[in-house]
Amino acid sequence: MSSVSTKPAKGMRDFLPEDVRRREYVVGIIREVYEAHGFEPLETPTLESIETLLGKYGDEGNQLIFRVMKRGAQLQEALEGGGGEDAIADLGLRYDLTVPLARVVAEYGGKLPPIFKRYQIQPVWRADRPARGRFREFYQCDVDVAGTTSLAAEAEVMSAVSMALDRLGFEEARIRLNHRGVLFGLIEAAGVPASLAVDALVAVDKVDKIGWEGVAAELMERGIAAAAVAALEPLLGLKGADAAATLAALEGALASVPKGLEGVAALRELLALASCSGAGRRVEVDPYLARGLSYYTGAIFEIASPFLAGSLGGGGRYDGLVGMFSGRDVPAVGFSLGLERLIVIMSERGMFPAALAPSAVLVAVMGSSLERAARLAADLRAQGVRVDLYPEHAKLGKQLKYAEGRGIRFVAICGSSEEEVGVVTLKDLQSGAQVQLPRAEVGGWHRAQ
Amino acid sequence: MSSVSTKPAKGMRDFLPEDVRRREYVVGIIREVYEAHGFEPLETPTLESIETLLGKYGDEGNQLIFRVMKRGAQLQEALEGGGGEDAIADLGLRYDLTVPLARVVAEYGGKLPPIFKRYQIQPVWRADRPARGRFREFYQCDVDVAGTTSLAAEAEVMSAVSMALDRLGFEEARIRLNHRGVLFGLIEAAGVPASLAVDALVAVDKVDKIGWEGVAAELMERGIAAAAVAALEPLLGLKGADAAATLAALEGALASVPKGLEGVAALRELLALASCSGAGRRVEVDPYLARGLSYYTGAIFEIASPFLAGSLGGGGRYDGLVGMFSGRDVPAVGFSLGLERLIVIMSERGMFPAALAPSAVLVAVMGSSLERAARLAADLRAQGVRVDLYPEHAKLGKQLKYAEGRGIRFVAICGSSEEEVGVVTLKDLQSGAQVQLPRAEVGGWHRAQ
Repeated sequence: MSSVSTKPAKGMRDFLPEDVRRREYVVGIIREVYEAHGFEPLETPTLESIETLLGKYGDEGNQLIFRVMKRGAQLQEALEGGGGEDAIADLGLRYDLTVPLARVVAEYGGKLPPIFKRYQIQPVWRADRPARGRFREFYQCDVDVAGTTSLAAEAEVMSAVSMALDRLGFEEARIRLNHRGVLFGLIEAAGVPASLAVDALVAVDKVDKIGWEGVAAELMERGIAAAAVAALEPLLGLKGADAAATLAALEGALASVPKGLEGVAALRELLALASCSGAGRRVEVDPYLARGLSYYTGAIFEIASPFLAGSLGGGGRYDGLVGMFSGRDVPAVGFSLGLERLIVIMSERGMFPAALAPSAVLVAVMGSSLERAARLAADLRAQGVRVDLYPEHAKLGKQLKYAEGRGIRFVAICGSSEEEVGVVTLKDLQSGAQVQLPRAEVGGWHRAQ
Repeated sequence: MSSVSTKPAKGMRDFLPEDVRRREYVVGIIREVYEAHGFEPLETPTLESIETLLGKYGDEGNQLIFRVMKRGAQLQEALEGGGGEDAIADLGLRYDLTVPLARVVAEYGGKLPPIFKRYQIQPVWRADRPARGRFREFYQCDVDVAGTTSLAAEAEVMSAVSMALDRLGFEEARIRLNHRGVLFGLIEAAGVPASLAVDALVAVDKVDKIGWEGVAAELMERGIAAAAVAALEPLLGLKGADAAATLAALEGALASVPKGLEGVAALRELLALASCSGAGRRVEVDPYLARGLSYYTGAIFEIASPFLAGSLGGGGRYDGLVGMFSGRDVPAVGFSLGLERLIVIMSERGMFPAALAPSAVLVAVMGSSLERAARLAADLRAQGVRVDLYPEHAKLGKQLKYAEGRGIRFVAICGSSEEEVGVVTLKDLQSGAQVQLPRAEVGGWHRAQ
């Protein structure tokens, strides 16, 4: 017996059958909705060249990449060369789905449609400190449109995300919407110098975690004058009774900031497009929404649920990123749904259907003949029934207990005299009732249960 | 512009939409068939503790494990300690699906049914030299029954594999069947000393690659007498007109080798069980079949196709392995289908359905209104149609070309006057024909195409 721990490694999870079925249920719906919106599936390798990953996620991101050691002679050389960690690794585990998309667009550009709509549902890995709901291996469900600056692309992505939320049962989830032009415009209107605008954005991004007082303290730490900080708060708080009122208020506040007005105009157009689909009723313009990442260039959005602190996913326009490997300018907009958070809420709130597994029948082994049971199992499978065949000689009681333990409701029993006349007895473990049926009718009968 | 290569890393592959759909098609069928046989899904993490993996796959296997470097202070310590490669890594990438199953059975034993039937379809990674059809990241489709020594478990696994081959269109594929008791019995009957029996098995395993002459040379190199080598060849070649005749011949040859006779008896029982399902017509008893791995303890089987050298998958009984972490004795039988090889043959022989993607409609943008197009797209999606919305203002010709490039057959056109009266024009790009329909009828019409 080995003394190795049999727990999954730190921050990793095993998915037992019920867990797999929950994931598959959610992924299946998301995939269906992304398909309904004309997106095409893409999958990229788990391992990328380390050069592809390094320098793409900031200093903090670099530290969170799982690096794979070189092998054989190359490893020996690197160890002897003493080049340290960067010399030892040649591969890294996928950190997100956006850098691989950029690599794919650069590599296969000519084979892809000029406007490339892709979805990608795969795990990513980050050597982060594990915490409740934060794992080192987790799934992202990304949807992106690359190759157009049209706001209809934002609206398509929002429609897809909204329909996925509909189908999963997140009636109450909202889409918080903002625009980098509006946010930077408000920062400028408050009197923050242009050189500190990104600092201000990074601080504002933390408002949900540390409150406005924390943000104000950080803004001043970063060298922004108290007057500008005081001016910024009411500007970010501009929110009318509805989106139209909010936009009107923002327009007033940004009257002298052209990029701010452009942002408001874009939001107005986007709201009109979003209201053509189910996304419209979910949208809420929120000037506070900042999204931490530096690469966004236009509209930004995030899913908020009253049942979870933090977001269920987010995205926006990022016109500079997808072209990073190709040297071409590839405007793009994308969104990433966080699978684990969706599943956390759905589990807590009982949002999964009662039966995720296809209903099954256990074929019991009666008397001495495994073959008779095997024949019945093959027959029922040919009729489309999901069949578990009890594989050993055992007392019926033991077999019924096994069925109960597996959550199987019906047990099919067929002795030699029953086989001779072509009938099967079906025992309902829930009610205790029994019914005898012609063998050929079991499939139809089971579907009707 | 970055100078980093945008190709996938060595031995890795990107899956563009058509590639993903082919994989999904095959995986979907295999999953359905495994489910129909009462197996439950399991998924385990990509990264395992390095201790879980090391020493499980032989010396050669150890060298093929992708190892993940420790991070931060632990890495520095390991580098300064000079402990070499084993000290630097703390994690490794999943190498197969059997060791994780053994870990799961040890960790969650009490929560699992006493007879645990699981399937697992996930990628594994091996730092092997890439070659045609051999990749460093590839999928395994495993199905295993743990917890019974009954031959009905072997028969279930064979039934599942055979039904998967049926559904995928591999009418001609055969299941080669042998038994370790028979093979070791024949080796003993030929006069090979017991101490060299495993050597003999390893050499016999290579007969498909190097022919009998190569095997004979290797047997003699390994110290087996020429007389024994000469006696072994006709014994391994014992094959009758059908399986029953082969078994009778083996029984004769093994008359004085009890473990050989036990093997023949097991094969006879297994053949009777296999003939209860579709597996029976595929089975072919072949005394040459050895399966290289040392861990098999009973029946062994392999899928052979006339369209591919090597096998489409293989498996057998391995009673010592699943208990390796738990210290309990967990008899088990399993099978692994090789996804990439199935796909290679299916692609070469045109075995995929013509349309793997759901049929889509492109909603064209007419005149100045993106909103009108967005409303139509939302309407059609609500009717269940897969819709791609062209996201920009563009000439109709450009939009039709985009649809052709994406393989979309129908384009929906709706100008302002058409929207007013509630009709849509649908253009068939294959025939050039146009039809005008009430808006609410487009979904039903499209399903009927």
